[in-house]
Amino acid sequence: MQRWKLTIEYNGGPFVGWQRQPNGPTIQAALEAAVFAFCGEDAGVQGAGRTDTGVHALAQVAHVDIARQTTARTVRDAINQHLKPNPIAVTHVEAVTEDFHARFSATGRAYLYRILNRHAPAALDIGRVWPVPRDLDVDAMHAAAQRLVGLHDFTSFRAAECQAASPVKTLDRLDVSRIGEEIHIVAEARSFLHHQIRNFAGTLERVGRGKWTPDDVTDILNAKDRAVAGPTAPPQGLYLTRVQYDD
Amino acid sequence: MQRWKLTIEYNGGPFVGWQRQPNGPTIQAALEAAVFAFCGEDAGVQGAGRTDTGVHALAQVAHVDIARQTTARTVRDAINQHLKPNPIAVTHVEAVTEDFHARFSATGRAYLYRILNRHAPAALDIGRVWPVPRDLDVDAMHAAAQRLVGLHDFTSFRAAECQAASPVKTLDRLDVSRIGEEIHIVAEARSFLHHQIRNFAGTLERVGRGKWTPDDVTDILNAKDRAVAGPTAPPQGLYLTRVQYDD
Repeated sequence: MQRWKLTIEYNGGPFVGWQRQPNGPTIQAALEAAVFAFCGEDAGVQGAGRTDTGVHALAQVAHVDIARQTTARTVRDAINQHLKPNPIAVTHVEAVTEDFHARFSATGRAYLYRILNRHAPAALDIGRVWPVPRDLDVDAMHAAAQRLVGLHDFTSFRAAECQAASPVKTLDRLDVSRIGEEIHIVAEARSFLHHQIRNFAGTLERVGRGKWTPDDVTDILNAKDRAVAGPTAPPQGLYLTRVQYDD
Repeated sequence: MQRWKLTIEYNGGPFVGWQRQPNGPTIQAALEAAVFAFCGEDAGVQGAGRTDTGVHALAQVAHVDIARQTTARTVRDAINQHLKPNPIAVTHVEAVTEDFHARFSATGRAYLYRILNRHAPAALDIGRVWPVPRDLDVDAMHAAAQRLVGLHDFTSFRAAECQAASPVKTLDRLDVSRIGEEIHIVAEARSFLHHQIRNFAGTLERVGRGKWTPDDVTDILNAKDRAVAGPTAPPQGLYLTRVQYDD
């Protein structure tokens, strides 16, 4: 039995999220079906984190145990072959020891949230950005974002259905910058609460259009009340971009 | 009657090309239907150039004459509203005089051709890149491309159905560079022959994998014979990125 670490890119649009479930296609189920088609083994594919319906990944990480003697290259090419025509690709495969666990060994996650900030709607990037046609003040958004960095009780930005044991997390980075017609929000932490980044994005958008100030965001954080923060931004702007492991 | 200059972004995937025709949806027909829905006028939308089935645009340019008194902003927003759910967006609208013609006033066109050069297939960019899993030598591709720049008879890179009066054109720029996992081919000229850039891409890919040298590309150019050049690269990697006008 060999454990393989998989790095996976996907368009989350056609899926009801990462995690296997009865009510629709999932990325995890597509990968498990591809592994079965390749080697006939009913192996569970364990991801570093569950992405929601419609959320994308540039570099999700997962592991899978396969009994058949094979190579990293064969695992990559065979799974990719059997994944077609799903918009999922295994970009890298690496042999790891059994003490590697995609979820529990991870020491950091990075996400990108893309806002398309122009008067015209999305065309080439439909389903891949949050289109916001209003003028947004990116400097104010970035300043407000800094109020959220550090060790905090993030109850105000946590979905009701969040299963994390505690709302207290350390947010390592939350940068907002303009890249052409887009605004990018980059978030890094050891781990995130359910909907945390989409709730950040929905709140920062309100700062961007002048409805709230950075001080208001401090008040929202301190209120520890989901009802006072902004709405949950749509899933299609969110990308899991990196999962970090030590060594 | 006011002439309006429209700048248009689109995903060419669902269309049989720019030009109105009976055998499938086109970008031109979608725009004309949106103009009609907006103002009830059966106005022709004239583009700077016809893009083929599956070819994208970041900034196609077109003009349309509208009798109704209106503003640039209203034209933009109304057409965009009526274009939904097509993956087409009017990004800019500008009032122009009647001596402006989107096609005949254009003094330059720029295109980008995107190759996804990695072992894994495309996932997020399915339908938006040409996936080439082989190792490609970008320096050799760029060197070969320089053999094509300048005033030449481009018969070897011209589709059989090309309607241009002459195969002699001046190619101003053909740069090949690696951007992360992608290879970008940037082409600029006053105008291009039918399939010219896709035929360049198909030929340069063969240079990249060592099948041909830059000297071979000079020989192919000089042969003035379409049969000796490489295959036509797929349309989904091609983007019309700019149309130039002298003011």
